[in-house]
Amino acid sequence: MAAVTNQVFIAVIGVGGVGKCFLSQLSALATRRPTPKLNLCYISSSTKAVFNTTDYSIGIENALQELASSSEAPMPLSKVADYLAAAPAKVILVDNTSSQDVANAYPLFLSRGISIVTPNKKAFSGPYKLWKDIFTAARISGAKVYHESSVGAGLPVISTLKDLVDTGDEVTKIEGVFSGTMSFLFNSFAPVQGAGGQWSAEVKKAKELGYTEPDPRDDLNGLDVARKLTILARLAGLPVESPTSFPVQSLIPKELETVSSGDEFLEKLPAFDSQMEETKLAAEEQGKVVRFVGSIDVASNSVKVGLETFDKSHPIAALKGSDNIISFYTRRYGGNPLIIQGAGAGGEVTAMGVTGDLIKVLSQIV
Amino acid sequence: MAAVTNQVFIAVIGVGGVGKCFLSQLSALATRRPTPKLNLCYISSSTKAVFNTTDYSIGIENALQELASSSEAPMPLSKVADYLAAAPAKVILVDNTSSQDVANAYPLFLSRGISIVTPNKKAFSGPYKLWKDIFTAARISGAKVYHESSVGAGLPVISTLKDLVDTGDEVTKIEGVFSGTMSFLFNSFAPVQGAGGQWSAEVKKAKELGYTEPDPRDDLNGLDVARKLTILARLAGLPVESPTSFPVQSLIPKELETVSSGDEFLEKLPAFDSQMEETKLAAEEQGKVVRFVGSIDVASNSVKVGLETFDKSHPIAALKGSDNIISFYTRRYGGNPLIIQGAGAGGEVTAMGVTGDLIKVLSQIV
Repeated sequence: MAAVTNQVFIAVIGVGGVGKCFLSQLSALATRRPTPKLNLCYISSSTKAVFNTTDYSIGIENALQELASSSEAPMPLSKVADYLAAAPAKVILVDNTSSQDVANAYPLFLSRGISIVTPNKKAFSGPYKLWKDIFTAARISGAKVYHESSVGAGLPVISTLKDLVDTGDEVTKIEGVFSGTMSFLFNSFAPVQGAGGQWSAEVKKAKELGYTEPDPRDDLNGLDVARKLTILARLAGLPVESPTSFPVQSLIPKELETVSSGDEFLEKLPAFDSQMEETKLAAEEQGKVVRFVGSIDVASNSVKVGLETFDKSHPIAALKGSDNIISFYTRRYGGNPLIIQGAGAGGEVTAMGVTGDLIKVLSQIV
Repeated sequence: MAAVTNQVFIAVIGVGGVGKCFLSQLSALATRRPTPKLNLCYISSSTKAVFNTTDYSIGIENALQELASSSEAPMPLSKVADYLAAAPAKVILVDNTSSQDVANAYPLFLSRGISIVTPNKKAFSGPYKLWKDIFTAARISGAKVYHESSVGAGLPVISTLKDLVDTGDEVTKIEGVFSGTMSFLFNSFAPVQGAGGQWSAEVKKAKELGYTEPDPRDDLNGLDVARKLTILARLAGLPVESPTSFPVQSLIPKELETVSSGDEFLEKLPAFDSQMEETKLAAEEQGKVVRFVGSIDVASNSVKVGLETFDKSHPIAALKGSDNIISFYTRRYGGNPLIIQGAGAGGEVTAMGVTGDLIKVLSQIV
């Protein structure tokens, strides 16, 4: 029988957009579900931290204000592990950063019995050795590690793929639009109905609307999608070495790879519109539209990211706004895939995936 | 810390299409994951049973053969509860029937600490009192109850709705096609492209292909969809009294409600084709197609099941084959819903939902 304990300690690293939304959801969760008592025991930004070596408790409601007025620097991660391992009950670390350093410390935290929930893609899409070290450490210690929001934000993508694999289905192919930015760009540039805008103008608009990274090249290089594909491929059983070990098509013209700023990139991009226009027209001549997709073919051990064309009636073509769509083709589901669709980015829905993971871990450790 | 135990006992009631697929998945699961050891300790059909009062163990591989040659009748459900409660470790009851009697016994099983996983809709869509009794019994004893396959078979519908609610999102509306039979019928009768067939001919074809119940009226009366809507509405917070306490449109012509057999129904249905044809044409004149859908509007506490029209570009219109589609509109997801789509019926995918639930319960009780 599971031992009954009445409290769990939560450590939060990272208080950016997702971190702030998560704290708000954590506060509401602690109010709705008084048992087990959720004690925030550590919170840190990149420059500050709050902790409490006396009773491991920080008020969740005022945590951000306390952090803002704190004069403490964040502890080194090995010290965080020592501090958390000494807590008087089970601990869950919530990593809301996109830091490779924090990701690299997951095996350490897990080996000390500290469970992890996170949207951080770096841990699961970095070197394959890190992936193995993480899950080996978790298996040995019994600590849990959940990362639903590392692909498709709060959409049930990771959990669905795990269920398919764990129940013995054979996933044959995974295909989809995994980037909200790319979705928005191509739904505007090459809509199913109407002419669509010029490529450079759509990129500019997406940046103005906040759909791109500060430098849009960080979206257009395809690496974000490649990281998500790496995670899904590994869950489907392919030992993908890294997000650069398979073909990833960059939409950055070679000549603009080295210009010094995102602004300069946007200024010079119109000169290269003809390339994308040709791609769009070639698709249109076949009655199709072009989209930026990722796909995993399990049987042939092939993962790729880049432009592909789709019939206008295909669910990938019909996507709206900045939505993601992920299709799982499996032996059991046959010809028609299991499809998950919806917003795949944004603070609230990303934090929702993290909070959902936290609830799943709570149900297993207390 | 969770107590470590090395075995769990599994009881299986029901060995029809879903039950047989489940046993095959259970056998594979027991091989893939030797810990905890999964001991089948009871299996029954409607007329026979196998159990083992000595060591509570029946070989999973040969269970169906043993059942076929058994001379034991199934125990009364109260005796099954006694037998399972006396097992030397945690027990999970897998109800693969669609029996109201078994469903009515869930509070008894749960109160004795026996967890339940099931695709049986009856327990969760029957009287509201049964719903409350089930979840009250589970809360008090700590036993788990999971029923993913009660809506959309193995599609992650229930788990997604629970995650939305548990993490504090507000579900405003749920809409979709919840019946594989209705999906197949309307995708053929009123396709997005082309003329489609005659209504009665499509019903006949669906029956021949095995997509309908033996008497197609059991699909056309809308009750199956109403049961699924009842479950989702309750999970979204609406205390729906029963699947007959909200408007459900039946597609059975009044004159044919009382004919004696499904065959006679099919024979007489062509005389009523003009009704459905008019509905189809009225939709077409608006550039739309007609579909049989269920919807839940949480704010107005309104649940309904019946025919509605959709733009041809709407995801519900574009559905293929016998697929289900379920759209969750929530505060966090805004204008574009979270959509789940795919096969919502069939032995293998229904059993998959049951096996997935079993794995979730295992992760919490051992």
